[in-house]
Amino acid sequence: MIDQTPLFAKLDRDAVLAETVEQLCAQDACEASWHRISRDQPLPSLDALTEVVGLLRAVLFPGFFGPQDVSERTMPYYAGSALDRVVKLLSEQINRGYCFVCAKENRAPCSDCESRSEAVALEFIRKLPSVRELLAADVQAAFDGDPAAKSPGETIFCYPSIKALTNHRIAHQLHHLGVDIIPRIIAEMAHSDTGIDIHPGAHIGERFFIDHGTGTVIGETCVIGKNVRLYQGVTLGAKSFPKDDTGGRLVKGLARHPIVEDDVTVYAGATILGRVTIGQGAVIGGNVWVTQDVPAGARIVQARASEQLYISGAGI
Amino acid sequence: MIDQTPLFAKLDRDAVLAETVEQLCAQDACEASWHRISRDQPLPSLDALTEVVGLLRAVLFPGFFGPQDVSERTMPYYAGSALDRVVKLLSEQINRGYCFVCAKENRAPCSDCESRSEAVALEFIRKLPSVRELLAADVQAAFDGDPAAKSPGETIFCYPSIKALTNHRIAHQLHHLGVDIIPRIIAEMAHSDTGIDIHPGAHIGERFFIDHGTGTVIGETCVIGKNVRLYQGVTLGAKSFPKDDTGGRLVKGLARHPIVEDDVTVYAGATILGRVTIGQGAVIGGNVWVTQDVPAGARIVQARASEQLYISGAGI
Amino acid sequence: MIDQTPLFAKLDRDAVLAETVEQLCAQDACEASWHRISRDQPLPSLDALTEVVGLLRAVLFPGFFGPQDVSERTMPYYAGSALDRVVKLLSEQINRGYCFVCAKENRAPCSDCESRSEAVALEFIRKLPSVRELLAADVQAAFDGDPAAKSPGETIFCYPSIKALTNHRIAHQLHHLGVDIIPRIIAEMAHSDTGIDIHPGAHIGERFFIDHGTGTVIGETCVIGKNVRLYQGVTLGAKSFPKDDTGGRLVKGLARHPIVEDDVTVYAGATILGRVTIGQGAVIGGNVWVTQDVPAGARIVQARASEQLYISGAGI
Amino acid sequence: MIDQTPLFAKLDRDAVLAETVEQLCAQDACEASWHRISRDQPLPSLDALTEVVGLLRAVLFPGFFGPQDVSERTMPYYAGSALDRVVKLLSEQINRGYCFVCAKENRAPCSDCESRSEAVALEFIRKLPSVRELLAADVQAAFDGDPAAKSPGETIFCYPSIKALTNHRIAHQLHHLGVDIIPRIIAEMAHSDTGIDIHPGAHIGERFFIDHGTGTVIGETCVIGKNVRLYQGVTLGAKSFPKDDTGGRLVKGLARHPIVEDDVTVYAGATILGRVTIGQGAVIGGNVWVTQDVPAGARIVQARASEQLYISGAGI
Amino acid sequence: MIDQTPLFAKLDRDAVLAETVEQLCAQDACEASWHRISRDQPLPSLDALTEVVGLLRAVLFPGFFGPQDVSERTMPYYAGSALDRVVKLLSEQINRGYCFVCAKENRAPCSDCESRSEAVALEFIRKLPSVRELLAADVQAAFDGDPAAKSPGETIFCYPSIKALTNHRIAHQLHHLGVDIIPRIIAEMAHSDTGIDIHPGAHIGERFFIDHGTGTVIGETCVIGKNVRLYQGVTLGAKSFPKDDTGGRLVKGLARHPIVEDDVTVYAGATILGRVTIGQGAVIGGNVWVTQDVPAGARIVQARASEQLYISGAGI
Amino acid sequence: MIDQTPLFAKLDRDAVLAETVEQLCAQDACEASWHRISRDQPLPSLDALTEVVGLLRAVLFPGFFGPQDVSERTMPYYAGSALDRVVKLLSEQINRGYCFVCAKENRAPCSDCESRSEAVALEFIRKLPSVRELLAADVQAAFDGDPAAKSPGETIFCYPSIKALTNHRIAHQLHHLGVDIIPRIIAEMAHSDTGIDIHPGAHIGERFFIDHGTGTVIGETCVIGKNVRLYQGVTLGAKSFPKDDTGGRLVKGLARHPIVEDDVTVYAGATILGRVTIGQGAVIGGNVWVTQDVPAGARIVQARASEQLYISGAGI
Repeated sequence: MIDQTPLFAKLDRDAVLAETVEQLCAQDACEASWHRISRDQPLPSLDALTEVVGLLRAVLFPGFFGPQDVSERTMPYYAGSALDRVVKLLSEQINRGYCFVCAKENRAPCSDCESRSEAVALEFIRKLPSVRELLAADVQAAFDGDPAAKSPGETIFCYPSIKALTNHRIAHQLHHLGVDIIPRIIAEMAHSDTGIDIHPGAHIGERFFIDHGTGTVIGETCVIGKNVRLYQGVTLGAKSFPKDDTGGRLVKGLARHPIVEDDVTVYAGATILGRVTIGQGAVIGGNVWVTQDVPAGARIVQARASEQLYISGAGI
Repeated sequence: MIDQTPLFAKLDRDAVLAETVEQLCAQDACEASWHRISRDQPLPSLDALTEVVGLLRAVLFPGFFGPQDVSERTMPYYAGSALDRVVKLLSEQINRGYCFVCAKENRAPCSDCESRSEAVALEFIRKLPSVRELLAADVQAAFDGDPAAKSPGETIFCYPSIKALTNHRIAHQLHHLGVDIIPRIIAEMAHSDTGIDIHPGAHIGERFFIDHGTGTVIGETCVIGKNVRLYQGVTLGAKSFPKDDTGGRLVKGLARHPIVEDDVTVYAGATILGRVTIGQGAVIGGNVWVTQDVPAGARIVQARASEQLYISGAGI
Repeated sequence: MIDQTPLFAKLDRDAVLAETVEQLCAQDACEASWHRISRDQPLPSLDALTEVVGLLRAVLFPGFFGPQDVSERTMPYYAGSALDRVVKLLSEQINRGYCFVCAKENRAPCSDCESRSEAVALEFIRKLPSVRELLAADVQAAFDGDPAAKSPGETIFCYPSIKALTNHRIAHQLHHLGVDIIPRIIAEMAHSDTGIDIHPGAHIGERFFIDHGTGTVIGETCVIGKNVRLYQGVTLGAKSFPKDDTGGRLVKGLARHPIVEDDVTVYAGATILGRVTIGQGAVIGGNVWVTQDVPAGARIVQARASEQLYISGAGI
Repeated sequence: MIDQTPLFAKLDRDAVLAETVEQLCAQDACEASWHRISRDQPLPSLDALTEVVGLLRAVLFPGFFGPQDVSERTMPYYAGSALDRVVKLLSEQINRGYCFVCAKENRAPCSDCESRSEAVALEFIRKLPSVRELLAADVQAAFDGDPAAKSPGETIFCYPSIKALTNHRIAHQLHHLGVDIIPRIIAEMAHSDTGIDIHPGAHIGERFFIDHGTGTVIGETCVIGKNVRLYQGVTLGAKSFPKDDTGGRLVKGLARHPIVEDDVTVYAGATILGRVTIGQGAVIGGNVWVTQDVPAGARIVQARASEQLYISGAGI
Repeated sequence: MIDQTPLFAKLDRDAVLAETVEQLCAQDACEASWHRISRDQPLPSLDALTEVVGLLRAVLFPGFFGPQDVSERTMPYYAGSALDRVVKLLSEQINRGYCFVCAKENRAPCSDCESRSEAVALEFIRKLPSVRELLAADVQAAFDGDPAAKSPGETIFCYPSIKALTNHRIAHQLHHLGVDIIPRIIAEMAHSDTGIDIHPGAHIGERFFIDHGTGTVIGETCVIGKNVRLYQGVTLGAKSFPKDDTGGRLVKGLARHPIVEDDVTVYAGATILGRVTIGQGAVIGGNVWVTQDVPAGARIVQARASEQLYISGAGI
Repeated sequence: MIDQTPLFAKLDRDAVLAETVEQLCAQDACEASWHRISRDQPLPSLDALTEVVGLLRAVLFPGFFGPQDVSERTMPYYAGSALDRVVKLLSEQINRGYCFVCAKENRAPCSDCESRSEAVALEFIRKLPSVRELLAADVQAAFDGDPAAKSPGETIFCYPSIKALTNHRIAHQLHHLGVDIIPRIIAEMAHSDTGIDIHPGAHIGERFFIDHGTGTVIGETCVIGKNVRLYQGVTLGAKSFPKDDTGGRLVKGLARHPIVEDDVTVYAGATILGRVTIGQGAVIGGNVWVTQDVPAGARIVQARASEQLYISGAGI
């Protein structure tokens, strides 16, 4: 390393700074980098959304997250103050999400963004009781589905499946209410924490469980029934991406991911691609690759024995 | 998006809040959601456990984590104050772990929980020197096993394997001492950070190394020998989950994961399921699927050539 | 659990602490644990590097990260103060990286470390405009490549690919400038966040995109062309690790990872091992295993049909 | 300065540390320094009490302090969660106050300290509505009494009188409930912030106002009526401290401070010492020194003219 | 203390909370307590103003406060980003100040508050260079006036006079620009820190110095010339407060405080009351009481000798 | 307020910023404002010194400040780690203090500043046991001297006298060791908190107590004996400041403050000016003004009766 020293002539620190700042802030450099930002339309804030999700988690699973010595009778105080703050923060972020899209599309500014954003945030708040019902069923499913789980509460604390589904069921509601970009950010927070990547658009039924979960991907147009169980490394993806007539840009928004019916189990590493249907109660084995419909009750496994070479240790 | 506006009638913010809070805090809603919490038995705290693991990491790898300009002679000051705090925090969390289980089982309150919790925390502290010996050997194994590693210290800083094993060897000690739920939480912290999911119950021998690691899963009843090396995406899992006689609930706690003997290597994406034994020195190739015993010294690879279709690019 | 109580005799808290501290701080214990630290050569600081990467992210994608209401005309203020701080923090960390290596190799102390460290930090700063150009192209590639992406900006906020590449393109520059260990730490930060593990040594061309990304591994000596797209769980790894003549230690630094030419696509779970070349425009199917060269334009898929057992649901 | 260098022989840093630590931690050194502390009876916490007072201030003056966009209908959520936390923190601190006194007096440990502490904290909570009534009247008095005040709200934000009285009325309640030491700590917080030193024992009637306030002292056994106004630098103190029969120790707790009846005004710098009575409506002029009773309606001023030497500027 | 226990019947914690919250949040209780707050007009924020003053201090005295290794050439980056944030924060606070007054007066909402607030904030920013010139002269005056000061820089770091004047010169500008309440809050911050209470309305000339300063009060309508020096405990106050014709309310805003001409010195504890003029170069001795004009060049001292009783120690 | 609107023409925010930044950063503007700063000689840091004093307070009064559940046997861990950090921080700050003076005096850089700074910091550490002895005696004096104090420990928690003396006895040691400016900053921290202004140069004997303390000032060259007690508002100051032969600048460093012998009491508001001696056991009454020597055992009080006008209330 020492012999590299001559490579580094003594630079003038302030001059390097000045020059680099100038290059980075040149208008065309910024435009090329998608930074068409303005002070009047600040972009969504990761910090604010992190706070929102933390507050919601504390409301949905009181005692497990947030203030710890909440009791049955003090819970309304904590839930009320948390949700009041969620409305405030989330309205602002929803509005920023709209502006983010408007700016991109050079649309005329919509005059009612702010009031609409609060209305949407309130609609979302109203859905929270049903969101919690869904999550309670997911907790039961996680407990029932894993012999290592000693109590449902343990899955609330420790299971990435519950963490990912909490974010998903929040993000999915916001997606359903037409909120732009914010749901994606919330989904990606869970992806970063758990390795489980669920697009907010995916429809997921009751009692869903993903064991371990790292590397599992669930695409935007998936439709998943009740009582479905996945393992780590499962992909519910798209097979191909049609391009538009101009030949260049992908057609966005088509139904292109699997339909998974009730009671299906998909083992680790399996890959299911395209708008196929996995029939009720089917079992997809580990590492299996599926690109066609699977009938209800079917069981698909890899014929592993035939494809592995068994080499006795002696000759290695 | 603009045309959706009519969907959102102007809601009364305070009324929505009040109504939602009432629904979320209704007694049956809470019970259905596993929130049988009480102010006298607060649940374990993720923040406290995060601080505990951070303090232990600083004690186990001084200088790498925690105060950075510790010297040989000032180390006792830092180690002593850190461990004093660990005892305090961990005793409290261990006790909360007991209460968590008691509450679940509606057991009579155990009168000696607090003193027992501190005793267990102290037993744990006594094991730290041997925990560090194990981790030092893991560091050496990581350095020896990866040509990209330039020094053992680099693996302490950068290798998810070392991070995951630090949490595991801590969690495993606590699990061995009969601590409830806390070990699972500590294990899941590492899973979230590294993508490596090791159940605290797994027995792992000296000089263990997982390269890259994302997606690797090691089940509760695994027994892993010395000098074993895994890669990313490896599953050491269970094959099936027997249900109890009543036909509904999983039987919990059975030995259902693999035994991996000394000197075994398992390449990326391999899946080993059930209570099988991988004999000493065996090599399991990438993406291989194993559900039966493998003799010592064996080498198993996929017969890839035969199963892939090679299509020249011309016709696509 | 209650019956375990007798196992835990009442320990003297202070005595346990004193004894454990003594054992942990004994000289040989420390040396065995790689802790040859000194107060005059503090180790690199994860906190400082986290701040550096956060500041750089704010400079590279202003408005998306860091201060949110930056405008075109105030940007120089924010960029300038952020980069001034980066120079200060990074110079110090680069120097610690040198010392880290020197200490390991028992080299004589290099007299010019500090000035050399600042020179390198300044060289790095000068590369930032070109780093941003590369990242802007990566953003465009992510948008073009994923039908679920609604705008390039969305990929800056939410796509692990962009997060991982930001760290990589920073780390790669530092690696190229001969900085020790710091690039690895920066790469591992992204690995922890995204599940994407890219070694700082890897050469990656323009318009690179990794969809979903969890579990993807790109090795130290990879060379990746322009316009390449990977999916989750892809491994670009080494096939075997030659040991040196003494028979024990791995030979470090050899070119041992794939060359991936322009316009290649590698689907989820595929594994490419060794110094093989994937020719321009080739498509590697999901879960395919490649250890030999693939010609330009080729398409390789698994012959799935033949290897899966289809079992009708009736008989299960 | 440079010539002092020889004074400082090169000291061994670690040796100095070790030696100093040993001296500071020697048992007799600690005892001489009042540090008869034990881990089971931690001392009161300034941080916890700071949080308590902050929460109370937000409850007593919602919107001015604490969450800022509280509305009439969300106020119960914020007040409830704040007071729930106050009960928890304050119970603990009250208990520590008891232990602090017990330890000092070597009393037998009182078995019911914890339950008694919570009972006292709850009694205190019940007094809060009347505490707020008093403070509302103090706010009105401050507005009425200062021509520079433009609104009552301004005095809540900016007037040291209101800050000091908030702490005092809290501390006085706790004092009245028999809480040890905690009230003194709360009073001293206000003294540090405002320069107004009011002993928690002082009885202060409605509509009290201290303008500017720096340096004003109100002693432990003062009794102050309604509608009293003080200025900065006023002392309501004790004249002499009788010692006990043994001739050495001060007799503690005697009534030794002034009684100030309704509607009295005391201007800046006046000093009133001993158990004298300032009759209703009396006005005590600036810098006046009073050690005897003053009848109702009297007005006392210094005969300044007679005591100042007027020297024309010419001759200086 | 122990015998007080019976006083405290066991209270139901949750019931006490519920009852107290209800009382505190009853509408009339709130109104009586000046809490006519609304979510749409949040009150000024002490935290935001603390940040504003901190940023301004860093801009006015770079290196002394704020980022410490600023250089001549990087100063614009730091000053620019700091001032940009000041504009944002201060505009918001100025607007809240207007609303605070409007709400009080039940005025119709002014439609242009927001734009006017930013305009005022920008006018304020433009005054900063002249504010700094004044402060630089104050620094020189502090150094010249105190034999204990070893350098001007020392007075920037350590002298309450400089701290108080920084806040005052900021607050006075805002007051001059018609900003409501915010200047008072900024002034009170300095009062709390230094014990020096300067009303934002006071006009203070160049090279002003207050030594020690605790307890010094400078009233709203004071006019102070150049080169004036005060000591601790000096009052420049009002003599009486005329009430309006209705006989009840104080007339607000009249000129009622002293005029202090150039080169005057006022020693510790002196009190000057009413709209009197202290002529150029006059010296007011310690503890002197002045309620009439003092001619230029005069020197007033207390005739101390005549008023003190000298009692030899023997007879006490 | 509304009619002022026209005053504020719509300003261009960015232009105002740019212009103001330019003016503030112009070289002559900076020089006039004492900002001869350089990146290589950063100024002392208030934050670092605040941390230093906090750590020292925790070491001097363990349990009262800092970690609260320290026990006799764990105290060495806490003291050791705290002092190790103090050495590091304080060495750096001492060095900055030297540079601060050097820069001012344009002295040649002293080559040994860094090593000298650490040597001084270590000398200071060695004095801590004797500093604590002094403070323990001050605590006893506070308890003995105030009938409102219920225990010595209470004075540690609540008495500004102890807080101010802790800072003073630290600052005085540093002053004695020739440290520049740092002692003044530490003294001013206490002044801001307590209103007690003690110059680090003052010599103060054992068992010193200041009751209430707001506004008390103790000058640089004071010499105070044992067992001295002061009250609030006492000034031990200088009478006049001789200027040097050039007629302009104050002569700095002369002995110009009082000598106060053992067992003296000075009541509130008394002023003692110049190099006078207050003899052993003398008592100086409240508000008395002393500019000449006072013999041992004397008692001086104001002849208040003669100077106050008593006006019966009727005629007011």
